[in-house]
Amino acid sequence: MEVLVPFSTECPKSRLSAVLEPGERAAFARAMLSDVLAAVDAAGGDPRVLATASVDAALGCPVEVDDRPLTTAVNAALSDRRAVDDGSVGVVMADLAIATPSALRGLFDAVEQSADVSIAPGRGGGTNALAVDHAEFRVDYHGSSYRDHRRIADEVGATVSVIDSHRLATDVDEPPDLAEVLIHGNGAAAAWLRDAGFGLDDSDGRVGVARVANGDDAAIRDRDPF
Amino acid sequence: MEVLVPFSTECPKSRLSAVLEPGERAAFARAMLSDVLAAVDAAGGDPRVLATASVDAALGCPVEVDDRPLTTAVNAALSDRRAVDDGSVGVVMADLAIATPSALRGLFDAVEQSADVSIAPGRGGGTNALAVDHAEFRVDYHGSSYRDHRRIADEVGATVSVIDSHRLATDVDEPPDLAEVLIHGNGAAAAWLRDAGFGLDDSDGRVGVARVANGDDAAIRDRDPF
Repeated sequence: MEVLVPFSTECPKSRLSAVLEPGERAAFARAMLSDVLAAVDAAGGDPRVLATASVDAALGCPVEVDDRPLTTAVNAALSDRRAVDDGSVGVVMADLAIATPSALRGLFDAVEQSADVSIAPGRGGGTNALAVDHAEFRVDYHGSSYRDHRRIADEVGATVSVIDSHRLATDVDEPPDLAEVLIHGNGAAAAWLRDAGFGLDDSDGRVGVARVANGDDAAIRDRDPF
Repeated sequence: MEVLVPFSTECPKSRLSAVLEPGERAAFARAMLSDVLAAVDAAGGDPRVLATASVDAALGCPVEVDDRPLTTAVNAALSDRRAVDDGSVGVVMADLAIATPSALRGLFDAVEQSADVSIAPGRGGGTNALAVDHAEFRVDYHGSSYRDHRRIADEVGATVSVIDSHRLATDVDEPPDLAEVLIHGNGAAAAWLRDAGFGLDDSDGRVGVARVANGDDAAIRDRDPF
């Protein structure tokens, strides 16, 4: 399955500005992207980055540049794929920093086995990943896109499989999300955070992140990644 | 499998005080509890509420009163069960308002099939649910309990299955969590929110909740609950 991974090269991750400088946000976004590409590949997908501008470093997979808004660019890509090949196509967001091959395989398998569309909802009603095997299904990422995608599927008569995964539900946008990466991440994004001096901080009764002198706070990693 | 559902009758859900009055928080906490008990029962578990004080309404299952701190009370219950019966025991938090029988069955099956302990991590490093079939495993809910439970399992030589579920990862503590209930919930908690006038609000670009005149905003419910 070809899997599109949309990636914005401009002003990435602005909501992380409270804890990361602009250059750091760009580097962290790249680290997350590389984790997602690796997970897609290990899950049996063929990743292709759909970038808003050319990307300045080798990603190990094809990069397509389309600077149109996300919804427009993804729908154009879906249409192009359908004109060439009747297979299924995935769309996986570039900031799913704790996605695993296992979780993504669930998303892909659902469509390869029976559903027309599989959707992994994100926290807050977004759509973090989906896979499509239906000629009329189109994406719409504005607003509460999970419900919009359910509605669109209904309208075109596409069956939907909803994927229940904390890993796929976790897009990394805001400082509290960094804790999820430190707790559950095993790849470049988690390593980047630790190298930058981040560690878990539960000093106020809730677990967040803070930059500490020694970023290596976690004694247990997910040796059995779920 | 007997499944303990700890429930605090005092000052529930204080972090929801920005959007709910004290009486409302208590009523909403009760609605979530009833959803969790129903889901546990439908998943094949035998729910038992472990309450900090007597509960003033029929819950449809046994209620045990223990006003000691959560960790102490749960460990006492685990020890008691082991003295009587060598079977597995579950502990599922009372505010997992979008938990489904399917998600809980995954947690229970993992222990009934092979693992000594199954753990459903919550956002922010907590432990939202677990099932135990190991004589020495003990809980510790302080701080970053997911990592502590992994460490405890390591120390007693218990194998762990980590459950990747957005539904089980979502404990409802703060206003943004209410959006998850409105989007994915199908039970008493979602109904309570709508009756109280809550609806989704994405007016500032992110999906949250607001009290509106007509709480019925969702055209699509999870007809295929994941």
